[in-house]
Amino acid sequence: MALADTRFLTRRRTLAARLAAQRIDSMLVTSPLHVRYLSGFTGDDGALVLSKDLSATICTDGRYATQVAEEVPDIEAVIDRAYAATLLDGLDRPRRVGFEADYLSVSELEKLRESAGEDITLVPVSGVIEEIRLVKDGLELTRLREVAALANEAFKGLIDNGELAVGRAEREVAADLEHRMRLNGGESTSFPTIVASGPNSAKPHHGAGERIIEKGDLVTIDFGALRLGYNSDMTRTLVMGEPDEFSREIYEVVRRAQQAGIEAATVGRPVAEVDAAARAVISEAGYGEYFVHSTGHGVGRQVHEAPFASQRGQGTLAENMTLTIEPGIYVPGRGGVRIEDTLIITPGRPEIITEFPRELTVID
Amino acid sequence: MALADTRFLTRRRTLAARLAAQRIDSMLVTSPLHVRYLSGFTGDDGALVLSKDLSATICTDGRYATQVAEEVPDIEAVIDRAYAATLLDGLDRPRRVGFEADYLSVSELEKLRESAGEDITLVPVSGVIEEIRLVKDGLELTRLREVAALANEAFKGLIDNGELAVGRAEREVAADLEHRMRLNGGESTSFPTIVASGPNSAKPHHGAGERIIEKGDLVTIDFGALRLGYNSDMTRTLVMGEPDEFSREIYEVVRRAQQAGIEAATVGRPVAEVDAAARAVISEAGYGEYFVHSTGHGVGRQVHEAPFASQRGQGTLAENMTLTIEPGIYVPGRGGVRIEDTLIITPGRPEIITEFPRELTVID
Repeated sequence: MALADTRFLTRRRTLAARLAAQRIDSMLVTSPLHVRYLSGFTGDDGALVLSKDLSATICTDGRYATQVAEEVPDIEAVIDRAYAATLLDGLDRPRRVGFEADYLSVSELEKLRESAGEDITLVPVSGVIEEIRLVKDGLELTRLREVAALANEAFKGLIDNGELAVGRAEREVAADLEHRMRLNGGESTSFPTIVASGPNSAKPHHGAGERIIEKGDLVTIDFGALRLGYNSDMTRTLVMGEPDEFSREIYEVVRRAQQAGIEAATVGRPVAEVDAAARAVISEAGYGEYFVHSTGHGVGRQVHEAPFASQRGQGTLAENMTLTIEPGIYVPGRGGVRIEDTLIITPGRPEIITEFPRELTVID
Repeated sequence: MALADTRFLTRRRTLAARLAAQRIDSMLVTSPLHVRYLSGFTGDDGALVLSKDLSATICTDGRYATQVAEEVPDIEAVIDRAYAATLLDGLDRPRRVGFEADYLSVSELEKLRESAGEDITLVPVSGVIEEIRLVKDGLELTRLREVAALANEAFKGLIDNGELAVGRAEREVAADLEHRMRLNGGESTSFPTIVASGPNSAKPHHGAGERIIEKGDLVTIDFGALRLGYNSDMTRTLVMGEPDEFSREIYEVVRRAQQAGIEAATVGRPVAEVDAAARAVISEAGYGEYFVHSTGHGVGRQVHEAPFASQRGQGTLAENMTLTIEPGIYVPGRGGVRIEDTLIITPGRPEIITEFPRELTVID
């Protein structure tokens, strides 16, 4: 518990320093994601206010009274249904109060304005907490490794037990994989599982439908679990029986592109260069027009979060950021391949926390 | 397809009439839930504008170009990543344009203001589409019955196959139930499955954790599936072996309360009276202080939507609304019971679309 408190306090200290730099006296945090990140409170409803002197108050309703006391021993809790409005009422005035402009709805802001009155100036704040979240601390890295491991294990179990098989519907394969992640301790999926077979493998946003998997199909499986607030994300494309030449070729191009992306993911590297490294391999092989998305993204409390490794991506990799490397080729009507791993950036070679062979796996 | 078009058009016609009454020329719809409700488009990203003369345009990006053409044949589609801003650009001016104030973030509105310029007045709109959604049309009722049926079947399978058993963790039971719903055609759960055993049954917001189910436990299972955009919602409390007198007593009180709620759920009845009918049974039995939530809510595209049958709930039931009836008793440290069914309101007795015995089921 003492360890937990220190960690949340460290995050709040970092935020408080940035607020002071923006001449904001207090920050009103209303997104459950960020309330949890800054305090440890796992309830869905509530709000937190943090002032530049590091004083903080959390507000939630009676359903969570016991839980907030247990989970957040180091912050004063107020029990009231009005959450953010109640927190505003408790602040000294006059005061400049930041709010989460990317999360607060227009209606919610309107209500807050009424509570704020004339002495509180509400200031929109964007991206500040997201920027702090870019670099993961020790416990976050542990959680990310744990949730990746349970998903790795589930995927291996799916393949080893023949649950990916000719004659099964995509939806059934997805159901079995999700069941295995759940039994391994996953609380839910981190996004709707993709099982894209045959021609569906050429659609990067296919879900998992009624199509029956056939001999010769490429099957792309993109999946993740959520546990204790952290997500996993991984993709493999497998082939049902001996692959034809086209499948073998695009697989090999994507595999080499992914390897190039992994090798480029080093401390100090601009994320756009990571994208370029993977993209160059695909372009040089003549498939550039079929790589229709970006190379990767961060993974943490959100399954898609900064940094974003795209052609126009901003920023540079630092130690203990996470990044997926997931190039793909999608040829409409013919088929597609995507290979995705999640990395932790280190001073040396990145640590790959997703695990399954990256060579083409043939399911007989 | 022709049938589908008519239905979405009917919904748009209803909305257009309400806009005209509020002196709004066009409504900008940005929540994926409402874009889907009004057009049939199932993509996650996009926006729709509907004008009072019933003209409409939908905007999404290149990933969904084929899909939007297939799903929305009767609305002009524009392919552009700027979604709502692009739609604003295409409107005649001057014009009063409504936006979804409960869904649009402060940042998103700020961006829209730039696109709007001086000739477009952006008007916050709240609750108008929600009010139209209150009464379900024929296809919606079919979808609601279908998704309830697949969840009913999954729950029956769980019980019949002994997957709810002494010695299993709550989480394992939840995993098996979710797997069954998935295999029956569910796309995901409609909310995190609750399996609350023994003392956890006294916590209305418990999830499904590591606790091992013991002989004598009350076990509350609250679950739902999502399919084709519609949710199901049902709860049963069962007992592991012969119940003690306390368990038997609170079960019987909740069962009678639920029956009273179901009987009160008739066309023309204020929702607050439905709550009162269920609540009275529990209060008269001396457990009023342990019924800590409201009696029920609508179920549709959202698993919790209007009407809300609480003590201060507003509005009156009409034909083809949905409503859950889910009273509960939660005695901290001892245990709890909740029984929940989803109803469709009819001119006569409500149609109950969730199915499992409401008498206490003893698992031996």
